[in-house]
Amino acid sequence: MSPGSTVLDANAFNPASAVYLDHETAELARRRAELLGPAYRLFYKTPVHLVRGDGARLFDPQGNAYLDVYNNVASVGHCNPRVVEAVARQAATLNTHTRYLHGAVLDYAEDLLATTPPALTRAMFMCTGSEANDLAVRVAQAYTGHRGVIITQEAYHGNTDLVSGLSPALGEAQPLGEAVRTVPAPDAYRTAPGQDVGLVFAAGVAEAIASLQQAGLGVAALLVDSAFSSDGVHPDPAGFLTPAVEQVRAAGGIFIADEVQPGFARTGATFWGFARHGLVPELITTGKPMGNGIPIAGLMAQAPVLDAFALRLPYFNTFGGNPVSIAAAQAVLDEIRQTGLQRHVCEVGAEFLRELRTAAAGCEFIGDVRGAGLYLGVEIVANQDSKVPDAARALAIVDGLRERRVLTSVCGSGGNVLKLRPPLVFGLPEVDWFMTEFTAVLKAVR
Amino acid sequence: MSPGSTVLDANAFNPASAVYLDHETAELARRRAELLGPAYRLFYKTPVHLVRGDGARLFDPQGNAYLDVYNNVASVGHCNPRVVEAVARQAATLNTHTRYLHGAVLDYAEDLLATTPPALTRAMFMCTGSEANDLAVRVAQAYTGHRGVIITQEAYHGNTDLVSGLSPALGEAQPLGEAVRTVPAPDAYRTAPGQDVGLVFAAGVAEAIASLQQAGLGVAALLVDSAFSSDGVHPDPAGFLTPAVEQVRAAGGIFIADEVQPGFARTGATFWGFARHGLVPELITTGKPMGNGIPIAGLMAQAPVLDAFALRLPYFNTFGGNPVSIAAAQAVLDEIRQTGLQRHVCEVGAEFLRELRTAAAGCEFIGDVRGAGLYLGVEIVANQDSKVPDAARALAIVDGLRERRVLTSVCGSGGNVLKLRPPLVFGLPEVDWFMTEFTAVLKAVR
Repeated sequence: MSPGSTVLDANAFNPASAVYLDHETAELARRRAELLGPAYRLFYKTPVHLVRGDGARLFDPQGNAYLDVYNNVASVGHCNPRVVEAVARQAATLNTHTRYLHGAVLDYAEDLLATTPPALTRAMFMCTGSEANDLAVRVAQAYTGHRGVIITQEAYHGNTDLVSGLSPALGEAQPLGEAVRTVPAPDAYRTAPGQDVGLVFAAGVAEAIASLQQAGLGVAALLVDSAFSSDGVHPDPAGFLTPAVEQVRAAGGIFIADEVQPGFARTGATFWGFARHGLVPELITTGKPMGNGIPIAGLMAQAPVLDAFALRLPYFNTFGGNPVSIAAAQAVLDEIRQTGLQRHVCEVGAEFLRELRTAAAGCEFIGDVRGAGLYLGVEIVANQDSKVPDAARALAIVDGLRERRVLTSVCGSGGNVLKLRPPLVFGLPEVDWFMTEFTAVLKAVR
Repeated sequence: MSPGSTVLDANAFNPASAVYLDHETAELARRRAELLGPAYRLFYKTPVHLVRGDGARLFDPQGNAYLDVYNNVASVGHCNPRVVEAVARQAATLNTHTRYLHGAVLDYAEDLLATTPPALTRAMFMCTGSEANDLAVRVAQAYTGHRGVIITQEAYHGNTDLVSGLSPALGEAQPLGEAVRTVPAPDAYRTAPGQDVGLVFAAGVAEAIASLQQAGLGVAALLVDSAFSSDGVHPDPAGFLTPAVEQVRAAGGIFIADEVQPGFARTGATFWGFARHGLVPELITTGKPMGNGIPIAGLMAQAPVLDAFALRLPYFNTFGGNPVSIAAAQAVLDEIRQTGLQRHVCEVGAEFLRELRTAAAGCEFIGDVRGAGLYLGVEIVANQDSKVPDAARALAIVDGLRERRVLTSVCGSGGNVLKLRPPLVFGLPEVDWFMTEFTAVLKAVR
């Protein structure tokens, strides 16, 4: 990465390149830059214009199909009929807020809490993962009486003022909060042989705890995404989070599982990412896949933790938990349960991982292939000995795939990890489709 | 108000009263308290269970119709067919995010910006008014290089960490931000004869400016809702905001118009609330009525102001500006324009105000009736001479109306102002319906 740039920018369209685009695309990009302003990022050297979606496929105005290997929001498939029908029906019936009684939000809260450890008995609803994390941190601070929050070095937890300060992935222009400490993400690929990933991570957390205590801030929470998405996808070995969480609790803090990315069956073996590590969080936040694109997010909590905040302060989120968003969320949960989607994710994810490892075996610039369920990372390096991140080649692969109408992106502090995170309905034919194009692109960038 | 309580609590159901409810309502309230926790508030001594909506009416499971004189989200009517159809169609076609090109978000941005003064040329989209205000304050701070924000004493600007600290309406348990100063809201009813509402307000703002400058914080923004909703609805005399805004600009700050409540034709004479005051804000935020209940919010900006933030930092809101939310918002804007809704609001609002004033003329405990368009406030006082707020009687009226299936609530620092804020499709028959029940309730609480 060049100094001052961010991983979020790594795969961004550069408006200066508009001259290379066809007229229609250039015109859309120009209007966009003028109307939406410079905070927005388009993906790809040649941006993609999409008008239709179906399952794991997206379509441009000419009717060309793109394979979606990136989007985790449309988790049960683009335009999933059950979700579309539920949203249309509820929108035509009633859409109001939680200051009147409505049964659906309670039925959904029960169903959702049934997927979590029994200690979590409360659910609150908001519209975005950012709002969920923002509230979770405030709840942690109210419960513990401490200020400090520990996150990973390339974390992204959202876009409000508070959680932007917990999102180093936004780049150096974004100051971190004064009560924030960052630690290196668990990284099995770069952990020295004989060392334990979990203990190395815990050692970083111990330093952060000491620093927060020295500053008189105390430890309110360890806030991590158990898939370590923006840190480069680090799922294994399952269980590595336990020593760090134990230390945080010993220091009087709690564990907030940011499940915005790994939750809702994404990692296959378990419904929630933290469950792979055998942990019971005090707080769980979720967002992206919860309503298959209809804005809804949630905070699930152990009652004594939440109540330390909630008995003192009211919280109202106008659209949070509204009947239409709840109908979408209920349809997503029903779809996951009734179609056996979690088992599908396990099976397809395992096959995808095998195929990627086979392709990687003959390729000197693929350093590592890792993943859990349908969240996979392919690390592109200068060579397998040095393990030096090769962001340029990773980007060339992403752009090569885009030219072949396969949608992916990159992540990791080096901007060199291919992020493969398709809708969960992605099946074996889609794995074949991806592997065909990926193999061709690997040859082309060699 | 009793010490420690908040206006947001004034009309809240007390769970200790569940024993007085019918079995079905009590059971819903019990599940709700257990599942959602104590931060949630239900309206009314006897909560309302709603299952269907249509125009300005809501229905309980027994099919009883309630007149909605409160809800500003379903602004173009509960279950507006144009919005329902647009949402259903787009949900079945494509729902993704702003990192791919999509024409609809640009078309909508153009249409939306056409309703604002020409100096505002940029629009960004998020999911809630809270997110819009959170971002607006950060933009103001980046542009001005100052920290200080001036708000009114009973303001409510949202629920994130940052904007909760700008929301004294949340009560004393919510600390305000250290760079926040509160000023008394403009209040024509309690301004001494011969005094100018705008100059009194500006004097408060001048004190706040001096305090912020003394503290070395400087003035980033005056952030107000031009309908002063949670302060008790204070629309008149139009123009009263100008001297305060001029002072803030002279101190290097900007004016953020929080249009979450007054925007989208609510005040009748103008499309935006600030426009009644002849002002051009640097930033405009909006939310509630924008998508008729589908979560969408916006920040509109003068380009140099926004770009001070946006050239330094990326901003991505996963669901913000997604095609389904944009389809809902476009349908709302089309409905307002194509049905002449703004003129309807003017006409019906004027008649509503006349009728209320007629009813008030013979009533010693109505101190003031005021409003703009379909945002009206009726101030309940001990008597017309003392002007002492009578929260108990205001609440009795709200509960009396609820028993007659008419939905309203209260606002204002005294918890004594009836807040009348129906869907904009509210017509003359609904004014008659309300006045019949209101007259009966006034007699009953005498």
